[in-house]
Amino acid sequence: MDYANFFKQKLQDIKSEGRYRIFADLERCAKDFPYAFYYNDSNPRKVVIWCANDYLAMGQHEQVLKAMVEATIRVGAGAGGTRNISGTNHYHVLLEREIADLHDKESALIFSSGYVSNEASISALATHLPECVVFSDSHNHASIIQGIRNSRAQKEIFHHNDPKHLKELLSRYPKERAKLLIFESVYSMDGDIAPIEAFCDLAEEYNALTFIDEVHAVGMYGHKGGGIAQRDQQSHRLSIIEGTLGKAFGVVGGYIASSADLIDFVRSFASGFIFTTSMPPAVAAAALASIQHLKVSQVERQKHQENVEKVKKKLLQAGIPFIPTPSHIIPILVRNAHQCKLATDLLLKNHNIYVQPINYPTVPRGTERLRITPSPVHTDQMIDELIDALKTVWNDLYIDYAA
Amino acid sequence: MDYANFFKQKLQDIKSEGRYRIFADLERCAKDFPYAFYYNDSNPRKVVIWCANDYLAMGQHEQVLKAMVEATIRVGAGAGGTRNISGTNHYHVLLEREIADLHDKESALIFSSGYVSNEASISALATHLPECVVFSDSHNHASIIQGIRNSRAQKEIFHHNDPKHLKELLSRYPKERAKLLIFESVYSMDGDIAPIEAFCDLAEEYNALTFIDEVHAVGMYGHKGGGIAQRDQQSHRLSIIEGTLGKAFGVVGGYIASSADLIDFVRSFASGFIFTTSMPPAVAAAALASIQHLKVSQVERQKHQENVEKVKKKLLQAGIPFIPTPSHIIPILVRNAHQCKLATDLLLKNHNIYVQPINYPTVPRGTERLRITPSPVHTDQMIDELIDALKTVWNDLYIDYAA
Repeated sequence: MDYANFFKQKLQDIKSEGRYRIFADLERCAKDFPYAFYYNDSNPRKVVIWCANDYLAMGQHEQVLKAMVEATIRVGAGAGGTRNISGTNHYHVLLEREIADLHDKESALIFSSGYVSNEASISALATHLPECVVFSDSHNHASIIQGIRNSRAQKEIFHHNDPKHLKELLSRYPKERAKLLIFESVYSMDGDIAPIEAFCDLAEEYNALTFIDEVHAVGMYGHKGGGIAQRDQQSHRLSIIEGTLGKAFGVVGGYIASSADLIDFVRSFASGFIFTTSMPPAVAAAALASIQHLKVSQVERQKHQENVEKVKKKLLQAGIPFIPTPSHIIPILVRNAHQCKLATDLLLKNHNIYVQPINYPTVPRGTERLRITPSPVHTDQMIDELIDALKTVWNDLYIDYAA
Repeated sequence: MDYANFFKQKLQDIKSEGRYRIFADLERCAKDFPYAFYYNDSNPRKVVIWCANDYLAMGQHEQVLKAMVEATIRVGAGAGGTRNISGTNHYHVLLEREIADLHDKESALIFSSGYVSNEASISALATHLPECVVFSDSHNHASIIQGIRNSRAQKEIFHHNDPKHLKELLSRYPKERAKLLIFESVYSMDGDIAPIEAFCDLAEEYNALTFIDEVHAVGMYGHKGGGIAQRDQQSHRLSIIEGTLGKAFGVVGGYIASSADLIDFVRSFASGFIFTTSMPPAVAAAALASIQHLKVSQVERQKHQENVEKVKKKLLQAGIPFIPTPSHIIPILVRNAHQCKLATDLLLKNHNIYVQPINYPTVPRGTERLRITPSPVHTDQMIDELIDALKTVWNDLYIDYAA
């Protein structure tokens, strides 16, 4: 076994497929987002970011930064231990209370990341619920798939956002059998939205627990930022709402909100929660400030939606083909890994616009795309420059306008 | 299936076993660690923490806090995306270079946590290396076990720290077969240290990759804080060194350091690395400052070792039984979950000393313990007060002095 050669070969394989990833080395400017300095070239230069998940620019919000700085000065850098062994800080406790209230649930639990919150909770639930069958949307995120896989529970994959197929699968199992239904509200790469009400109806009919991943919706939808379930008045019907502090809330970390006993169960049984250092108190303080702000302020959500509509309208006028979505995510299909990479290279080189090419395994092969995420702080001028740049690049590379 | 009743019953089970966990709600004082305010009672009161993993008190170090505050103000709170999609910040790049240098390796890769760094790297390696057999120490951490389990690779568990048994297992497989040998340097709960040189000899003889978990050693051992492997001059013989930024370095996050190609492979194939928001730039900046400081300063390491020796000596004089260890971790066995909990309750209530009881699943049943971790900032007076308090509690509860 020649290990060195094995790793070299594996890397060569993805390079020849055109999907070797080169990270854009960025330095965001806290008072000046969506601008950032791009460090990959010999001379750092200023670019406009059009693909961040800091959807509402809360990562630079004055109150969020103030909370983070003050907590750092007050209680220090790290938490100093796991939640159970000296690592629970008062900010964690306050943050969990705030999250529970955000979703009108009894309790909440925070994790290192959204990925960990999905993997650890789902894996704990599906492992311990006796003979649990998991019903999982075919487009669910990698972290959900890992959680199911790691539980070794029996699983049924239903067609994406398809209640009819889900019903067919649910009806194959007796009512007494434990069932866990898992889906997302807004899907990250296609921007489409789940039929939450129909799924809740089915869950009630067949007695299934429901787990909704709202990471691409919390902060942005609902009267206090509780996500699509809140907007659609379905929160109370969902057993577990999972969210992130790392996208619209602008910080980092994941969470679940649910009944007090279910949260206490996951807290007591999830390996990925128990055996890990808790988040820095200052991170919790920043997330707390962000949630509190977005609970009452509608400005960011409104401006965000306005900018999303502006970009969609101008793309339509320019004839640049994108997947029409009911959400804030705008996927522009290129359908080829190499061409996708070339397009983003040109955007960066000639137009100082940074959009990451999205390729396999993040999306299926043949659906490579640019994923545009407007924020409330992108100006009209930036939007116009984006559209002009896309047209130029589409012409330069002879990309199909009817893709 | 009555879900509500199921969760209630599961919680009742662990309560009756005496291992239901109540988190200590603490607020550390950044300029005053190991003091913290304890919030569980109606009136918060000041306690001394004796069980933190902020081993060197770097979580309150002036330079670390300064770096964290400055980076927050400069680049904002969150990273805004995954490493591949707009979430790589220049601080991440600088931190990875610094970690590579810390371990004298070509490259490094950072993760959300030490848990994730183990799970994600091990799972990626053992999944993709063709027909890989994993050789794992029987005392390895939950995150390592999860990584192996999730890879579905064949595994052999060797007796804890036993090169003879490892050799026996290795010799059963042909040399061509891919092998991954995984062990820790300092074991968290027993404080014992692996025979690294003997393990490296065997790995070379049988052509195995070696993966060492140094989370309880980095920062504290070796001339620049590179861990036990560095102290024992074995770093160059280890394929992968895994460490944490959340214990002696005082912040949060995990990492691996290795050859450029192996790091690039894990970067490209590990699900838990790819599909997650990257750490806040300010967290990376803080960790960077901490590593840089501990690379050149010996003061913290020396004072740490002195305090560890003081506590051990005084425990011996007082007749309080502890596991003699070659490291900085001092396990005091109680061997009973209920009594262990009672002892820590009394320490807190009557002596303002916070030590978390350690019970199953963190340690095997019947080996419940107090785990004492002295730091450089515990004073002689605090040490004396700890010893006196332990004696009082041992007498109050009739705990066996010969346990």
